[in-house]
Amino acid sequence: MPAGTDQTLRPFLWRAANLYPDTEIVSRNHDGMQRYTYSEYDDRTAQLANALEEYGIEEGDRVGTFCWNHSRHFETYFAVPSMGAQLHTINPLLPDAHIQYIVDNADDQLIFVDQSLAPKLAGAVADADDEFDGVEFVVMGSEESDDLESTAYESFINGHSSDYDWPNVSEEQPAGMCYTSGTTGNPKGVEYTQQMLWSHTMASQTPQGIPMADDDVVMPVVPMFHVNAWGMPFTATAGGAKQVFPGPSPDPEDLAGLIENEGVTISAGVPTVWLGLMEYCSENQVDLSTLETVIVGGSAAPKSMIEWFDDQGVEVLHAWGMTEMAPIGSVSHLKADLQDADYETQVNKRSKQGLMVPGLEFKVIDENGEEVDWDGEAFGELWMRGPWVTTEYFKRPEANEAEFEDGWLKTGDVVTVDEDGYIEIVDREKDVIKSGGEWISSVALENAIMAHDDVSEAAVVGVPHERWQERPVAFVVPTADADREALVDEVTEMLADEYPKWWLPDEIEFIKNVPKTATGKFSKKDIRDEYADQSLVDGRVPEDAAPDRD
Amino acid sequence: MPAGTDQTLRPFLWRAANLYPDTEIVSRNHDGMQRYTYSEYDDRTAQLANALEEYGIEEGDRVGTFCWNHSRHFETYFAVPSMGAQLHTINPLLPDAHIQYIVDNADDQLIFVDQSLAPKLAGAVADADDEFDGVEFVVMGSEESDDLESTAYESFINGHSSDYDWPNVSEEQPAGMCYTSGTTGNPKGVEYTQQMLWSHTMASQTPQGIPMADDDVVMPVVPMFHVNAWGMPFTATAGGAKQVFPGPSPDPEDLAGLIENEGVTISAGVPTVWLGLMEYCSENQVDLSTLETVIVGGSAAPKSMIEWFDDQGVEVLHAWGMTEMAPIGSVSHLKADLQDADYETQVNKRSKQGLMVPGLEFKVIDENGEEVDWDGEAFGELWMRGPWVTTEYFKRPEANEAEFEDGWLKTGDVVTVDEDGYIEIVDREKDVIKSGGEWISSVALENAIMAHDDVSEAAVVGVPHERWQERPVAFVVPTADADREALVDEVTEMLADEYPKWWLPDEIEFIKNVPKTATGKFSKKDIRDEYADQSLVDGRVPEDAAPDRD
Ligand SMILES: Nc1ncnc2c1ncn2[C@@H]1O[C@H](COP(=O)(O)OP(=O)(O)OP(=O)(O)O)[C@@H](O)[C@H]1O
Ligand SMILES: Nc1ncnc2c1ncn2[C@@H]1O[C@H](COP(=O)(O)OP(=O)(O)OP(=O)(O)O)[C@@H](O)[C@H]1O
Ligand SMILES: [Mg+2]
Ligand SMILES: [Mg+2]
Repeated sequence: MPAGTDQTLRPFLWRAANLYPDTEIVSRNHDGMQRYTYSEYDDRTAQLANALEEYGIEEGDRVGTFCWNHSRHFETYFAVPSMGAQLHTINPLLPDAHIQYIVDNADDQLIFVDQSLAPKLAGAVADADDEFDGVEFVVMGSEESDDLESTAYESFINGHSSDYDWPNVSEEQPAGMCYTSGTTGNPKGVEYTQQMLWSHTMASQTPQGIPMADDDVVMPVVPMFHVNAWGMPFTATAGGAKQVFPGPSPDPEDLAGLIENEGVTISAGVPTVWLGLMEYCSENQVDLSTLETVIVGGSAAPKSMIEWFDDQGVEVLHAWGMTEMAPIGSVSHLKADLQDADYETQVNKRSKQGLMVPGLEFKVIDENGEEVDWDGEAFGELWMRGPWVTTEYFKRPEANEAEFEDGWLKTGDVVTVDEDGYIEIVDREKDVIKSGGEWISSVALENAIMAHDDVSEAAVVGVPHERWQERPVAFVVPTADADREALVDEVTEMLADEYPKWWLPDEIEFIKNVPKTATGKFSKKDIRDEYADQSLVDGRVPEDAAPDRD
Repeated sequence: MPAGTDQTLRPFLWRAANLYPDTEIVSRNHDGMQRYTYSEYDDRTAQLANALEEYGIEEGDRVGTFCWNHSRHFETYFAVPSMGAQLHTINPLLPDAHIQYIVDNADDQLIFVDQSLAPKLAGAVADADDEFDGVEFVVMGSEESDDLESTAYESFINGHSSDYDWPNVSEEQPAGMCYTSGTTGNPKGVEYTQQMLWSHTMASQTPQGIPMADDDVVMPVVPMFHVNAWGMPFTATAGGAKQVFPGPSPDPEDLAGLIENEGVTISAGVPTVWLGLMEYCSENQVDLSTLETVIVGGSAAPKSMIEWFDDQGVEVLHAWGMTEMAPIGSVSHLKADLQDADYETQVNKRSKQGLMVPGLEFKVIDENGEEVDWDGEAFGELWMRGPWVTTEYFKRPEANEAEFEDGWLKTGDVVTVDEDGYIEIVDREKDVIKSGGEWISSVALENAIMAHDDVSEAAVVGVPHERWQERPVAFVVPTADADREALVDEVTEMLADEYPKWWLPDEIEFIKNVPKTATGKFSKKDIRDEYADQSLVDGRVPEDAAPDRD
C-alpha cells in the first residue's frame, strides 16, 4: 500500500526545537515568571517522557492534567502524546461531581495538578467514592502540596535524560481527550487521535484558520484545560512562534502586562476575557500596538467588541468551535469581495461565526429533515463532518446513538447560513423554543433584550405549554438602578418592533444573575430547572404563538 | 475507535463550490479562452464523473491525462479521485519509450489527451508493442482527433447530470499517480493516496508553505502533467482563490498577458520559465503590479532572479520538492530574525532551498552514515519522512530496496544545513563526485563556471579514475563570441580562487549544448553516456585530488 508516514504531533516539536531553538516560551507560573527556549523546552519534554516511562506510563495509558496555562502544562502537551500515551485535560472549574465522574470515566492513572488547584482537587478526592482509587498526583512546581499526597514536578523529572527516542506512534492512537462543557447535560468525553490533532493543527494554520508564523507571539487565554486551548500550543509550535502562557487565573492587568511586555501578536479568549480587558484599558494606559489579532469564541462576540478592537487597530476574528471538533470549525474572515463594503456591512459579517475552514463539510437540517436555504434567514441544526470532527463520544452509547448520523456530527447548534456562506449561531437545539411547530431563537431575543441599557444580563427559555408546545419566558438581570416597571414595557416594545408577535416572551421575570457553566456560558439548563414551569405562562395564552399559515 | 472522517479531496471542491460559487476559473484552452465559475466547474466535474461512471470507470481504476494546464484538465483533477478512481498524469515531453513504459506500468484504462499533443501520443501508440492495448482516448475539446481514434471531451460529458453523489472514499485509496522526471534513470511511479494529497494541500496552506486565499489569483505554470502542478490546483481550490491556467506551451508573452489581464498574485514555475519572462519584460512594457509571489523550484533559483523580482516588488519563494513528496518539502521564507539583516545576507538565505514546512522531519547522512552538523558546510544525503512523503515506488522492488530505510525516503539529494536550518542542495547523490574518498559538489562547480560572462551553460561530471575513484570534468557551452582559450584559463583561475585545489576539474571540454530531461533539467546521465570516459583524465593525475589529512 502506498502511504506517507503517520500523522503525529512529533514533527511539530521536532521543527520548533530544530529550526527555532532560541525562540522563547514565557510563562506566568505559580512560582514566578519562567522564560526559556524551545531548545530547553525540548529537553524538559524529553525528561518528562523519561520520567513518565520510568513511572510506568505505557502506550495508551491516560494521564490527566488539572492545570492553568503555563509552561509545565505545555510540557505535558507534547511529552504525553508523543510517547504514545493520552493527555486528558480536566476542567478544574467543574463541580466536584463532574470531576469525579470524568476521572472515573476516563480512568486516569496519574494527574498533574497546579499548586493553587490542589485544594479543589483534594476536595473532589475526599468526597469521592472509588473514582480516584489508584490515581496518583504530581504537583506543578518545586514543592509538594499540603493538600494532596503528591510528588513535586521538578523532582519528578529531575535527573532524567534530556534525550528521548520518540517512537513512531500510530496516527490512530488516541493522543488527547477533553470533555464538553456540560452546558446541556453531563460533560461528554471526546478522544482526539494523533491524526485528528495533526489535522486540526494544519487546518488552523491555513489562511482561513488562525495561522501562526515565526514572527508571531501567541498567547492563549482560552484555557489549556478546555479543548487544548483551541489547539494553539500545537499550532504555535508548528509555526515556530514565541509562546506566552498567562498562568493561574489571569486578570485583565496580568493580560495587559503580558501583551505589553512580551509583544503579543495573537491571542484568543472567550468574550468575557476581552470585556475584562476592554474595561481595564478604559481605565489604564495600555499599549496594544503589537497586537494584530484577537480571536473570540466559545460564545458569540458582541459587535461592540469588534468595533472597540478595530479602533485599537486590532483585528477581531470571531470563531466557532466545539470540543467535538478539537475545536475549530468556522472563522469569520472577511471575504475578498467584502473588503470594499461599508463598515457596518463588514462588522455585521464579522460578527457572525464565519466561514468553515478547508477540510470540513457541513449541512443545515431543519425540523422536517430538509437542508435549509442559504439566505441568512432559514435556520436548522448544523451537521458537521471532517477529519478532526469526532465520530463518537467516549463510553456514551446513548449520546452516540442520538448525536451522529451517517458519519455526520449533529452539533446541537441551530444556525442560519447567508448567501456568502457565513454561518450564524441562532441558538442551541436544546434551547430553541418550539412554539406552534415553529422555532424561536432564544439567543436572538436575549441579545435584543440585553441591548437595553438597564439590562445587564438576560436569558430566554421555553417553558412547556399545552397548546403551543413551548412559550418563551425572559429572565432578566436589571442594572442596580433600573426602573423595573418601565423596563418591562420598554423591552416588550423593543421586541415588538423587531420580531413577529408570536416571538414575544409571555413573561419577563427579574432574577439576580444568570447561572453559568464552568466555561462561563449561560446555563439555561439550570434556569429551566430552577425557575421555569408551566405556571409562568398559564393563563396567558397569546393569540398568535406561531406564524400565520395561509 | 475514535476518529474523524477520512481525509479526502472532496471537501476542498465542496468548499469552493459553496463558498465561492462566483469566483472565476480562467483558462487558455486549445479552443480559445474559457472563463467560468467554481459553480460551473462543480457542475462540469459532476458531469465528468457521471460520464466516467457510465463509461465503466470504477473505484481504483486508473485514468491517464496527457495534457497541458487548462480547465478541462483541472476538471479531471477532482472528478477522477473524488469518484474513487486514480488520476495518472503523464508528462508528454518524455521520450516515446518512457511514455510506453509508463502507460504499461500504470495500466491506464482511458487517457485524456490534448488536441495539440495527440500526434505525439499517436506516435508513441503506433510505435508500441502491447503497452497501449485496450487503452481508449478522449480528446480535450469539442472535436475528435485526426491522429487518434478518440471521443471529444465535450461529447463525452454532454448530457450527463451535473449532480453526482460523491462517495465516501477511503483516505487510503490511491487518488493520484505521477512519475519522476527520469533525471537519474527510468521514471519511477509514485502513488498519492487521498490522505497524502490532503496532507500536502494543508501543508501548502500553512504560512511556512505557499498559502492561498480568496483574494489570490493563482497561476500554475509548473505543468499539471508533472507532480500535479505542485498541487496548486488543489491548494487554490481549498483556499477559494481564482485560478488561471496558461494552457498549451505558454510562451513569455502569454504569461505576461495573463498576469496583466487576470491580476495574477501567485505563480509558480521552474527557473527557465522566469528567465523567459524576465527577458520578455526587458523588451516589453509589462505590468507586474498585481504579482505578489513567484515560486521557483524544480532546479535552483539563481540569485539574480531573486534580485530582479525584488526590484519589481515581487517576492520570490524558492522551493524544493520531489515527485516522491507530492512535491513540497522546503520553502525559503525569510525567518523573522533575518528581517533586519542586510540585503545580501537575506538574498543568500533566500537563494537556498529553505526551511521544511510543518509536518515533515529530515536528517542528513554523510558517507559514514552519521548525521552532519548544521553548519552550512558539511554535506550528506537528505532523508525525509512525513505524511505526504511516499514510502514506496510503484512496482519497483529494486528501487524500494535501495531508496527507503526505516520509513525514511533517501532523496538522492546532497545538501548542507546551516545554523538557521535552511537546506541547500549541493548536488545529487548520483552526480556528486567522489574523489579520494571525499565529495565534490558538481553543482557548486557548475554555478561558479556559469558565473563567467562567456559561458552560457556548464555541466560537471565525475569520470572514473583508478587512483582517486572519480575526477571532475567540466563540459562548457561557450557563448558565440567567446575566446575559448582565454576562457579555459579564466575559468580555471576563478575556480582556483574559490575552491580547494583538489576540486578543480581535470579537463574543460567545450560542447554545443547540455542535454536536458523532459522537465528541462541538465541530464548528466546523458553527458556521462555521451562524453565521459576515463581517457579524458588519463595522464593528468593531479597531486591533490583529496584534502590533506594530517
Ligand atoms: N463563537 C461562538 N458563538 C456562539 N456560540 C459558540 C461560539 N463558539 C462556541 N459556541 C458554543 O459552544 C459550543 C461548544 O462548547 P463546548 O464544546 O465547550 O461545550 P458545550 O456545548 O457548551 O457543552 P455540552 O456539549 O456539554 O452541552 C458550541 O456548540 C456552541 O454552542
Ligand atoms: N529548488 C530546487 N533546487 C535544486 N534542485 C531542485 C529544486 N527543486 C527540485 N530539485 C531537484 O529536483 C528533484 C525532484 O525532481 P523530480 O521528482 O521531478 O524528478 P528527478 O529527481 O529529476 O528525476 P528522477 O528521480 O527520475 O531521477 C529533487 O530531488 C532535486 O534534485
Ligand atoms: Mg456541546
Ligand atoms: Mg528524483
